[in-house]
Amino acid sequence: MMQQLTVASLARDIKFEGFLLVRSAEQRTSSNGGKYLDLTLCDTTGDINCKMWDGTVQPPKQGSIIKVRGTVQEYNGRLQMRIERMRNPGPGDNVDASQLMPCAPEPPQDMLSEINRTIDSMKTPELQGILREMLSMCGDKLMYYPAAQRVHHAERSGLLHHTLGVLRAAEAVLPLYPFLNGDLLRAGAIAHDLSKTVEFLSDEAGNVSDYSAEGQLLGHLVHGVAQVKEAARRANVEGEYVLLLCHMVISHHGQPDHGSPRPPMFPEAEMLHLLDDMDAKMNEMEGVMRRTPVGAFSEKIWSLDRRLYHPRLDAYDGITSAEADADARDAYMGLL
Amino acid sequence: MMQQLTVASLARDIKFEGFLLVRSAEQRTSSNGGKYLDLTLCDTTGDINCKMWDGTVQPPKQGSIIKVRGTVQEYNGRLQMRIERMRNPGPGDNVDASQLMPCAPEPPQDMLSEINRTIDSMKTPELQGILREMLSMCGDKLMYYPAAQRVHHAERSGLLHHTLGVLRAAEAVLPLYPFLNGDLLRAGAIAHDLSKTVEFLSDEAGNVSDYSAEGQLLGHLVHGVAQVKEAARRANVEGEYVLLLCHMVISHHGQPDHGSPRPPMFPEAEMLHLLDDMDAKMNEMEGVMRRTPVGAFSEKIWSLDRRLYHPRLDAYDGITSAEADADARDAYMGLL
Amino acid sequence: MMQQLTVASLARDIKFEGFLLVRSAEQRTSSNGGKYLDLTLCDTTGDINCKMWDGTVQPPKQGSIIKVRGTVQEYNGRLQMRIERMRNPGPGDNVDASQLMPCAPEPPQDMLSEINRTIDSMKTPELQGILREMLSMCGDKLMYYPAAQRVHHAERSGLLHHTLGVLRAAEAVLPLYPFLNGDLLRAGAIAHDLSKTVEFLSDEAGNVSDYSAEGQLLGHLVHGVAQVKEAARRANVEGEYVLLLCHMVISHHGQPDHGSPRPPMFPEAEMLHLLDDMDAKMNEMEGVMRRTPVGAFSEKIWSLDRRLYHPRLDAYDGITSAEADADARDAYMGLL
Amino acid sequence: MMQQLTVASLARDIKFEGFLLVRSAEQRTSSNGGKYLDLTLCDTTGDINCKMWDGTVQPPKQGSIIKVRGTVQEYNGRLQMRIERMRNPGPGDNVDASQLMPCAPEPPQDMLSEINRTIDSMKTPELQGILREMLSMCGDKLMYYPAAQRVHHAERSGLLHHTLGVLRAAEAVLPLYPFLNGDLLRAGAIAHDLSKTVEFLSDEAGNVSDYSAEGQLLGHLVHGVAQVKEAARRANVEGEYVLLLCHMVISHHGQPDHGSPRPPMFPEAEMLHLLDDMDAKMNEMEGVMRRTPVGAFSEKIWSLDRRLYHPRLDAYDGITSAEADADARDAYMGLL
Amino acid sequence: MMQQLTVASLARDIKFEGFLLVRSAEQRTSSNGGKYLDLTLCDTTGDINCKMWDGTVQPPKQGSIIKVRGTVQEYNGRLQMRIERMRNPGPGDNVDASQLMPCAPEPPQDMLSEINRTIDSMKTPELQGILREMLSMCGDKLMYYPAAQRVHHAERSGLLHHTLGVLRAAEAVLPLYPFLNGDLLRAGAIAHDLSKTVEFLSDEAGNVSDYSAEGQLLGHLVHGVAQVKEAARRANVEGEYVLLLCHMVISHHGQPDHGSPRPPMFPEAEMLHLLDDMDAKMNEMEGVMRRTPVGAFSEKIWSLDRRLYHPRLDAYDGITSAEADADARDAYMGLL
Amino acid sequence: MMQQLTVASLARDIKFEGFLLVRSAEQRTSSNGGKYLDLTLCDTTGDINCKMWDGTVQPPKQGSIIKVRGTVQEYNGRLQMRIERMRNPGPGDNVDASQLMPCAPEPPQDMLSEINRTIDSMKTPELQGILREMLSMCGDKLMYYPAAQRVHHAERSGLLHHTLGVLRAAEAVLPLYPFLNGDLLRAGAIAHDLSKTVEFLSDEAGNVSDYSAEGQLLGHLVHGVAQVKEAARRANVEGEYVLLLCHMVISHHGQPDHGSPRPPMFPEAEMLHLLDDMDAKMNEMEGVMRRTPVGAFSEKIWSLDRRLYHPRLDAYDGITSAEADADARDAYMGLL
Repeated sequence: MMQQLTVASLARDIKFEGFLLVRSAEQRTSSNGGKYLDLTLCDTTGDINCKMWDGTVQPPKQGSIIKVRGTVQEYNGRLQMRIERMRNPGPGDNVDASQLMPCAPEPPQDMLSEINRTIDSMKTPELQGILREMLSMCGDKLMYYPAAQRVHHAERSGLLHHTLGVLRAAEAVLPLYPFLNGDLLRAGAIAHDLSKTVEFLSDEAGNVSDYSAEGQLLGHLVHGVAQVKEAARRANVEGEYVLLLCHMVISHHGQPDHGSPRPPMFPEAEMLHLLDDMDAKMNEMEGVMRRTPVGAFSEKIWSLDRRLYHPRLDAYDGITSAEADADARDAYMGLL
Repeated sequence: MMQQLTVASLARDIKFEGFLLVRSAEQRTSSNGGKYLDLTLCDTTGDINCKMWDGTVQPPKQGSIIKVRGTVQEYNGRLQMRIERMRNPGPGDNVDASQLMPCAPEPPQDMLSEINRTIDSMKTPELQGILREMLSMCGDKLMYYPAAQRVHHAERSGLLHHTLGVLRAAEAVLPLYPFLNGDLLRAGAIAHDLSKTVEFLSDEAGNVSDYSAEGQLLGHLVHGVAQVKEAARRANVEGEYVLLLCHMVISHHGQPDHGSPRPPMFPEAEMLHLLDDMDAKMNEMEGVMRRTPVGAFSEKIWSLDRRLYHPRLDAYDGITSAEADADARDAYMGLL
Repeated sequence: MMQQLTVASLARDIKFEGFLLVRSAEQRTSSNGGKYLDLTLCDTTGDINCKMWDGTVQPPKQGSIIKVRGTVQEYNGRLQMRIERMRNPGPGDNVDASQLMPCAPEPPQDMLSEINRTIDSMKTPELQGILREMLSMCGDKLMYYPAAQRVHHAERSGLLHHTLGVLRAAEAVLPLYPFLNGDLLRAGAIAHDLSKTVEFLSDEAGNVSDYSAEGQLLGHLVHGVAQVKEAARRANVEGEYVLLLCHMVISHHGQPDHGSPRPPMFPEAEMLHLLDDMDAKMNEMEGVMRRTPVGAFSEKIWSLDRRLYHPRLDAYDGITSAEADADARDAYMGLL
Repeated sequence: MMQQLTVASLARDIKFEGFLLVRSAEQRTSSNGGKYLDLTLCDTTGDINCKMWDGTVQPPKQGSIIKVRGTVQEYNGRLQMRIERMRNPGPGDNVDASQLMPCAPEPPQDMLSEINRTIDSMKTPELQGILREMLSMCGDKLMYYPAAQRVHHAERSGLLHHTLGVLRAAEAVLPLYPFLNGDLLRAGAIAHDLSKTVEFLSDEAGNVSDYSAEGQLLGHLVHGVAQVKEAARRANVEGEYVLLLCHMVISHHGQPDHGSPRPPMFPEAEMLHLLDDMDAKMNEMEGVMRRTPVGAFSEKIWSLDRRLYHPRLDAYDGITSAEADADARDAYMGLL
Repeated sequence: MMQQLTVASLARDIKFEGFLLVRSAEQRTSSNGGKYLDLTLCDTTGDINCKMWDGTVQPPKQGSIIKVRGTVQEYNGRLQMRIERMRNPGPGDNVDASQLMPCAPEPPQDMLSEINRTIDSMKTPELQGILREMLSMCGDKLMYYPAAQRVHHAERSGLLHHTLGVLRAAEAVLPLYPFLNGDLLRAGAIAHDLSKTVEFLSDEAGNVSDYSAEGQLLGHLVHGVAQVKEAARRANVEGEYVLLLCHMVISHHGQPDHGSPRPPMFPEAEMLHLLDDMDAKMNEMEGVMRRTPVGAFSEKIWSLDRRLYHPRLDAYDGITSAEADADARDAYMGLL
Repeated sequence: MMQQLTVASLARDIKFEGFLLVRSAEQRTSSNGGKYLDLTLCDTTGDINCKMWDGTVQPPKQGSIIKVRGTVQEYNGRLQMRIERMRNPGPGDNVDASQLMPCAPEPPQDMLSEINRTIDSMKTPELQGILREMLSMCGDKLMYYPAAQRVHHAERSGLLHHTLGVLRAAEAVLPLYPFLNGDLLRAGAIAHDLSKTVEFLSDEAGNVSDYSAEGQLLGHLVHGVAQVKEAARRANVEGEYVLLLCHMVISHHGQPDHGSPRPPMFPEAEMLHLLDDMDAKMNEMEGVMRRTPVGAFSEKIWSLDRRLYHPRLDAYDGITSAEADADARDAYMGLL
């Protein structure tokens, strides 16, 4: 993506040309009866109201990316962009979506490929059959769904990011606890949150608008059990693996107060619960560290029920404390 | 059933002829290599060990009723019956199973007919289709399954007894709260506990030997959701009714600590939860009253987390207190 | 009551004549020393500030209904009514209070009569004596007290409405559980909440201004026990019935966290607790359904600690979904 | 009381003469038709079965003290006393009940006198009137009732002991918090547990056989409120003091889980709760210390949900550790 | 301190001379490049922004008291004082700090002396050594630190006030429970909260700006254990007293949810917990009573999780209710 | 270690020679005044009472291993070994302690070396200094202490086993979450449980006899903070690392109910808590799986508050179910 101005840097009379994310868009009718487009467009630095005075243009889809050219004006003391041209991105545009919205750090297609390679290398055909059906039932949503509306992995493709995070953690600890059945743990890691594609509604930018009726009345754990059973039926799989995978899905929140009517009742189910918790907490805490200055405490984080401290770690490697602070912060931000 | 001696009244040298329930039965080999049957037979007053020294007779099925003729002997200080003849009951025997084991107060076929008539009179074909499939999936187990291993409706056909109890209570309160959708509440009443036929294993006398793996790893609420979905698929029903019924099943225990990951989220689901609780508590408390003397407190009932008091209700209707006590107890026992 | 304009429809220069409820009223002194009345009057659609420039008129009582004639004006951008005449309603006015404030759906005198007939038909003179004294101790408050400040039956005569609701539910379920003592359950239903007439302060429109010191320091359960004992003393009743009724009052909230230091310890006390909960929840949920569109979720209801769903119940009886929605909503609203 | 042998020191053929406590006593009929007395008698060191072969003697009252003369025999390997003479103690006997049963450390009459002097010195006639009525309603039970069946002050006159303990603690802290109303706190201290005389049944030795129906169905807090109201009625006291004292009684356990439906809502009520807790805990812990060796941990104390440690406090006052241990233990035991 | 105007009574053109507390102070640079002081000064009635147009004066320390002379002006509709002269108080000024900020009712030096006298009179050199080191480690902070940021003893020298309150309560109850080790209880009373001087940051006026990293990451209980161990090391004390005192510090909040990982496990530790709770609650409730009118309920007090009632206590000593109200309130306010 | 008979296989008249673990040992005096040794010796299959009739032999140390030669006899119906010779093992004996008691699967010296190598490779001298002091403070106890009396890693050298398990898990997940400070997490893993060497008392066989006073009154979390501070003082380390490590120790149980007065407040502390939980749970569950047959449920495991299921995992790799069962069990047992 070519260099473009950030939304936060716009000012009156600036001419803008570049790609923006559609937060909302609708056709309206002005007092003189003419039709026009009213849009809110954004990148990761902010958003701006825009008008396009052309009654023939249809509103772009919420959550999509468009290329616009326009001029920034001021109206009633607030900035507004008058759009002159607007088009969908083409293949040669090389749009960098991560400048426009929070995105998982890896492309969704790469993440899905890694998951599929893991399934291919399994030695348990029953689990392979169920997992392939489940992924197929999710369809395109997998590409952009976040893992949550807020809290952790609330980003485009966050569901794949979290799924892969749990799967990689499983691979990391399996050599330490060899009595665990590896394929069963891998299958639980891949399957545990897939019903989130039914639990809430997300646009293609990974923005959750609401929970579905199914999500509110059943939740992704209970729905997940029905999904595993349906996938097994389609894959002609019967026997204990179906039951074990259902149990891993229903128990992965660990206890009744967190949504699991059963605690994990075999070691692979317990390990799945622990790794799911670990990956979610690490992702959330990393975000809190990013926005908390070194040496300071965060505000109270409600989902964690505590404040967090960003350690100063001064005098690291013999550098003076003041230098270390600056370096540490820079290094930290560059890491990610 | 003709009059017969109770097990509690047996003594040495008595000759017994009558119907008894098979608690356990197996063929054994004696020290001299001969085969014989070792049985434990019972009625509601007690049980007795029995031997049949005939190597050609196959052991009867646990939970079945047999007619036996034999003589009571004493062996190592304990009574034992030597069985001379044994046969299955025939059509003309008119066996009164309720003398042999705790039974629901109405015949299972009558209870099931009442449930089926209710389904027939519904005006919602979607619910009718799902319910008929669910009942069909339960098969013969419906005839004898109890509603629990202990606590409430732990009796032959107790599952039907409890299901019908909730259904009748629903019919009783519907006129008081006319904004409720009657068919939805009726459907919830019929469907809510049917997965208990999968949750545990019962013999035909309503005696629960154990929980199944499915029962332990998922429970009848979670399994019930999958069952409703499967029944809907078979009945070609789609749409909101499937979701509503799934929610009623998963929420009917009311709160996470009691097994429901969702609270009841519409009035019919809340009413189902309340009536299920009412019918179970009344059945359990009635049992406690029966075994607690008038004017006394029961031992602590763990499932209720309290002791119960059997009120004296003296001076009722002008009778003196002493007479009332005796009368009340008698009347009470006769009522049921 | 003759047809009159609703408060919500008032606009400048409109002349209004009709009945309104007095939300507040006081005599004030203007800067020139003259006295005048400042009132807030309302119906169920809204309220309006009013002035009556006549220093000789005494302020009407809060919670009463008055007939006014006046002209709507605008003052500092808000509507205000200048009242020309004001009087108390007379016998021929046929005021329909339900247009002016939330009211129980049946007249209080009818509800009280049904309760009294129930008492008259009891066969237990002890309970009859206590109940008649208790009702007499409540006096006129019974006619207009609500059952709560918010949450459920927060309406004129809501206390009678809820009391009768529990009593009718008791009559409905008694035939299903014949081991229950009917008179004891009926007495509990009638007595359980009567101390609410001491717990809080309500005007005659069923509007609760505050809790009393007795209500805050003891609560209606504890006060209710003292009230039962006092009523028994006046009615010359002694013996177990007094204790049983006291226990039903103190235990009817079911558990310590809900205000009951004892759980219900005999079946009639448990049933009272269950029916009290049922009648309160159904009344509250009915209100939530009324203000939640079909197919949508309510906001979170704090007293229930959950959101509620208003089922769509589409394709009901073969009508198309869109028609059914409209019909269902209409039917629903007309039901009540 | 003259010196006598302890029950623990009895052996075959010893002749015993002295005072013992009647744990149980009944007249039985021997196989030859003769009547005799079967008794269990005890002191604080143990109990012994006794027979008196005299059909004309009526069994003494459980919980009473008798003087017996008899001979110890052995029957079926266990000691048994054959009683030759038995009589009630007379005025000149100077029985020391504390050798026969756990007793409060001060005579009940002295304790009651101190309480009465406190009432006499109050300046609030309303509280004086209520308290005098309440004490009078307790009657003789006050002399011997314990404060609990187990846990704390489970001793003859333990109720007075605890009541006075709380009262003295109130006097001790009142100078430190002068904004407290002294008479109100004193009244709460005296009144808070008096309904224990109704809650359970105790013999004259302070031995609790059971809870009463009133105790189980209401508890001493709820019953206490009714008792305060009844006492106020008899003493012709009305107004806020009645309500305040009722609140202190109902709130003195501090929170719902401990039996108080209301928390203490003014400072004197809170102080009463704290001092009640303090006096009970100190009495209980003193007992645990007495039976736990210095330097050791007790078994788990269920009422406190913890184990306790008996500190060694070595090198106290410059004595060597070994001496200190012995001295401390002796001193400690002698203190009490 | 000579009589001076309160901040609340200041108005335009008034000339003020007197002592005020420095809430904040910094040197700023005006648009024309000149330096000046910007201050917020206060007494207990309010605060006022002040300017001193003298670039040579250094800003006084936050939390200190200064004497100022100036003139009140109005700027942008708000009062502002132009300061002409400013100096630190001298020895002859007799400043009454309690007019400028909430202060403990006794001078800190007197309170500390009483604590030191108590230590001197102990008979346990081990405890004396530890306590003296701990007090010395606190240094000057003891003179002004409050006991909390809010809730109880949030006042200058509040930490000493609370420490002494617990110590005096210990002296008051020790005669009632003679089995307690007096020196151990006294030592716990003195030591239990001293680590609050590390837990948060206070200026010399007893105003807490924030919690320290040590306070947030460890808390004053855990830090207190390390402090006792360090003090024992410095004082060359070993043995059980160190452990006992550590336990009293870590357990003085009574239970895990309140910050104590261990419950009090010997009687002196339990008594310390009870007296700490008592002194904190009485101080907090006294504050609530002061700001709640007689006969009224307070708003909900979050730290106590309840509303409080200010008893009317009418008809006290034969005075009429109306007079008593006024008198009681006056007397009450004068008491403190 | 040469082949020897197991204790479980001993029978009368068998001559035994081999190594056994000393469970208890004391010198006693027989009725004829002679001295002898009474011992209980064991291996992992059981224990046996032994006598050595030689008054000159001193009792061996509890928890030590000895070589014995003797003859099995029967006394009062129970087996007893008469020991003829007894000696301590020598260097050439190659005793396999794991046949005599539960042992960690790796030699303690190897485990400690791996920990020390990790410390050597750290880049943070502050943490290296503290850790080396802490390990040194533990001394030889590290070689044999278990991690707990029961539940998890209750085996010889179990503390090292668990410490290394957490450390290896940390190394495994660090690459997945690169924003974590590796040395801080490693330091927490090594330090978190070292105070268990003070919390309880273990013999050299890893058998816990009791908790210490320090362990009961403070616990290993609180004691661990003091230990870190003391180690830092000895190593001359100051600054934030001391505080961070103290926090990791005090917070590693995650929440107040599990003993941590603070939750983990930075990501490395949270990760330590998660990995500690993971390693403990996996170790415990592995043990439960070992003693639960394939396809069955365990008894209720109290520390986990649930039953566990040992999955059947049938038809694995195309083998028939029956074969797979046997193979899986064998393979599983061989794995460990």
